[in-house]
Amino acid sequence: MGEESAITRLREFMRARDWEQFHSIENLIKSVSVESGELLECVQWHGQPDTERVKDELADVLTYCFLLADALGSEPEELILAKLQSTEAKYPVDKAKGRSAKYDEL
Amino acid sequence: MGEESAITRLREFMRARDWEQFHSIENLIKSVSVESGELLECVQWHGQPDTERVKDELADVLTYCFLLADALGSEPEELILAKLQSTEAKYPVDKAKGRSAKYDEL
Amino acid sequence: MGEESAITRLREFMRARDWEQFHSIENLIKSVSVESGELLECVQWHGQPDTERVKDELADVLTYCFLLADALGSEPEELILAKLQSTEAKYPVDKAKGRSAKYDEL
Amino acid sequence: MGEESAITRLREFMRARDWEQFHSIENLIKSVSVESGELLECVQWHGQPDTERVKDELADVLTYCFLLADALGSEPEELILAKLQSTEAKYPVDKAKGRSAKYDEL
Repeated sequence: MGEESAITRLREFMRARDWEQFHSIENLIKSVSVESGELLECVQWHGQPDTERVKDELADVLTYCFLLADALGSEPEELILAKLQSTEAKYPVDKAKGRSAKYDEL
Repeated sequence: MGEESAITRLREFMRARDWEQFHSIENLIKSVSVESGELLECVQWHGQPDTERVKDELADVLTYCFLLADALGSEPEELILAKLQSTEAKYPVDKAKGRSAKYDEL
Repeated sequence: MGEESAITRLREFMRARDWEQFHSIENLIKSVSVESGELLECVQWHGQPDTERVKDELADVLTYCFLLADALGSEPEELILAKLQSTEAKYPVDKAKGRSAKYDEL
Repeated sequence: MGEESAITRLREFMRARDWEQFHSIENLIKSVSVESGELLECVQWHGQPDTERVKDELADVLTYCFLLADALGSEPEELILAKLQSTEAKYPVDKAKGRSAKYDEL
């Protein structure tokens, strides 16, 4: 990007405020859930949310997800790609095509 | 990375299964919350979770966050960095240092 | 109680505001999750929450749970008791005593 | 009801399994969120859920809500009624009628 990555900036931000002490694995996990609840609030009463508000709340969920990945010594893209490999095995194209059923109901 | 990015792989995966039809903004938001609940289950009874299980559940939350960002025409890193700028204004280092209080209680 | 029950009062409150139109099963379910996130925020950074704040947030979760039960034609106490019967079969005392493991790991 | 109340039965169930040790305020709050996520899964992809499955998942949310209320020395119905009183003041009928807006946007 030519600029610093998100996780580098997040680490600097937290270190400057001495906030790393609050970022246990458990607290980060709780924070992901808290922020997901605020994201869900964008569609609480209907399915046409304010896009800027969704971006704002999604940014918070992503922030804690990135901090949690970092605390686990992982990178977000790698976690996604590793999981995708196992999901591909569980949902083969021929069985899963066009269906939202859970893999054990396919 | 020398390989395809996570979002490119996710798009291919979804297109191959014809799953894009399920991925409205609202459904993706609900999915982020559903997966956050499974992540939280890792620390439901105590704060020392199985790291591999946390990575696995975090991967699911991240997957839906990346798909949601994509549906909004945004990139995850950009959303995080944009939010960080506004958070920096709300939590100045001198006031926020070492405190977990919400910004309006600083 | 000598007074009106919670669900009777909730129904009157909603009817007076014409809010029943928003209370589809799906919207009530989303609302339970949104409010659970606010409840979780009480323990986001530590395990010693402000008791009055917890009661306040729990009241919101309970409110939507009661409205959802009502929309399903059920009573909260009956739902709990019916579930307890099936849980008793899954977690026999001799196997489950003193363990927080999930029933399929007992 | 002529039978035991839900909270009496829940207390007996937990005591018999020695599970009260896991039921700190924080763990019960996390459990409400975990179960709310499972409830939300019922409407993850569409708004027409299986009613029996919704009842089953709602029963779990209610169970932890009742246990949490009990741990706080409160009764669920009382919490709902107390909150309803303060909500009535925030959402007067003349302003709130037929609108899903948050009270500070009325």
